[in-house]
Amino acid sequence: MADIDRLSMNQVTLLEQCTMPQFLDVLARNDVRLASLWRDKTREHGVERTAALVRERGIALSGYCWGGLLTSADPHEARTRRDDMRRAIDEAAMLGSPCLVFVAGGVDAREKSVPDARRRALEGLAGIVSHARGAGVKIALEPLHPMICATRSVLSTTKLANDWCDALDADDVFGIAIDVYAVWWDPDIEAEIARAGKRVCAFHVSDWLADTQDLRLDRGMMGDGVIDIPRLRRAVEEAGYTGPIEVEIFSSRNWWRRDPDEVTGVVRERFASAV
Amino acid sequence: MADIDRLSMNQVTLLEQCTMPQFLDVLARNDVRLASLWRDKTREHGVERTAALVRERGIALSGYCWGGLLTSADPHEARTRRDDMRRAIDEAAMLGSPCLVFVAGGVDAREKSVPDARRRALEGLAGIVSHARGAGVKIALEPLHPMICATRSVLSTTKLANDWCDALDADDVFGIAIDVYAVWWDPDIEAEIARAGKRVCAFHVSDWLADTQDLRLDRGMMGDGVIDIPRLRRAVEEAGYTGPIEVEIFSSRNWWRRDPDEVTGVVRERFASAV
Repeated sequence: MADIDRLSMNQVTLLEQCTMPQFLDVLARNDVRLASLWRDKTREHGVERTAALVRERGIALSGYCWGGLLTSADPHEARTRRDDMRRAIDEAAMLGSPCLVFVAGGVDAREKSVPDARRRALEGLAGIVSHARGAGVKIALEPLHPMICATRSVLSTTKLANDWCDALDADDVFGIAIDVYAVWWDPDIEAEIARAGKRVCAFHVSDWLADTQDLRLDRGMMGDGVIDIPRLRRAVEEAGYTGPIEVEIFSSRNWWRRDPDEVTGVVRERFASAV
Repeated sequence: MADIDRLSMNQVTLLEQCTMPQFLDVLARNDVRLASLWRDKTREHGVERTAALVRERGIALSGYCWGGLLTSADPHEARTRRDDMRRAIDEAAMLGSPCLVFVAGGVDAREKSVPDARRRALEGLAGIVSHARGAGVKIALEPLHPMICATRSVLSTTKLANDWCDALDADDVFGIAIDVYAVWWDPDIEAEIARAGKRVCAFHVSDWLADTQDLRLDRGMMGDGVIDIPRLRRAVEEAGYTGPIEVEIFSSRNWWRRDPDEVTGVVRERFASAV
């Protein structure tokens, strides 16, 4: 069983119900002290105002979601995305977030080349090392599920995240975020988490529903699906990670339609019984 | 460009439109000489009647889909599934199909253990070696997309298929079916196809649509998605596979709603331009 003090609420879990102040109020009412902020919501409220509000409420951040999409084959688009990535790093620093989650970007449909998309994402990361180091923000490379490889992320496995970290050779700047939803099926997951070791800088939980109906927005509450979450938690702990455990549930047909205090109550219960 | 003589139509591509005789008529009208049969359709028409019809029409089979689901933790269910697998092998032999496609089965939701499900699938395969050898039917281990790991197949990567073949140590009985839809995202795909070498005994094509809306039934026609199919075709050819190329498109919102001769015409065109 995971210690409830490690519970961090990812803002996306209450994406449809709450503005930024409402989200922080829900956390306060339900005694949740850690959060990961969603970038759209943060910018909507204003980055500086959000930073002040977070400090005022005594919330510690476990992450900021997200920057990236560095796979475009078009030079103008690519430059725009790199600029945006640097802005996201600056925002994370301003908010006091220890890390910025990195989402690689999908396959450029104009060229249909996964290897080229991967090469460009890696080159893009190499290009932001000094900026991230200067800002004191860790870039959390997050392997995402292969089912969103086309549109969202060509970083499809933890092995590839480790390979990229090896190539970047800057473990002070790059870490790896392990999201159980993205990696639970991977035959090599335990070996690759062990290989990651101290690179693991974030751990995200939710569950895979047997009757999943959407490729992005149908995640389940911990305990409602088929993922052996405690096994993966123990794996990251054995690798040396004992930090926040973020609950990140995209759920357009269920949890996004419920009262935010109800959702947070269930999250607390399930954190104790299924994480 | 792939030689049109290698075109094999998987019956599932016309699943909703045709009975078995209608399917074989469509192939004849459109000069397609190879096919892979779907088991439900075959049993609906009768295995012996289908075998006679296939011979009569001069159709050569490239495969029979499918047998498996050997992951249940329940001994009674497991026995029932092993018996069914042996029947599927016998049916494939009766039909004159060189191989039976193997679908491993998903995670048993009662225990939530992917490693245990994989162990049982592998044990199940070990238990049918002599039966398959006696029937002269190759078992084509088909890695399926990780997004159907929970419900359909814990055999999620080509690396794992190779590992299983190593463990089974019976390359006269087991081969590997490469379906571009299931493996295109895999960072190790080219290395694992090279490692498979002569194990590759089937090659299936379709395409991944950028706006995929369903986890199983929304495959695209070759050329309509983001998969670099020729790259994967060259990889299996370099591994030594020069056999039939099966078109296998599950498409409840598009191709299953169209006239079967129209679909087959488009398949022939795209086989020339996008495979």
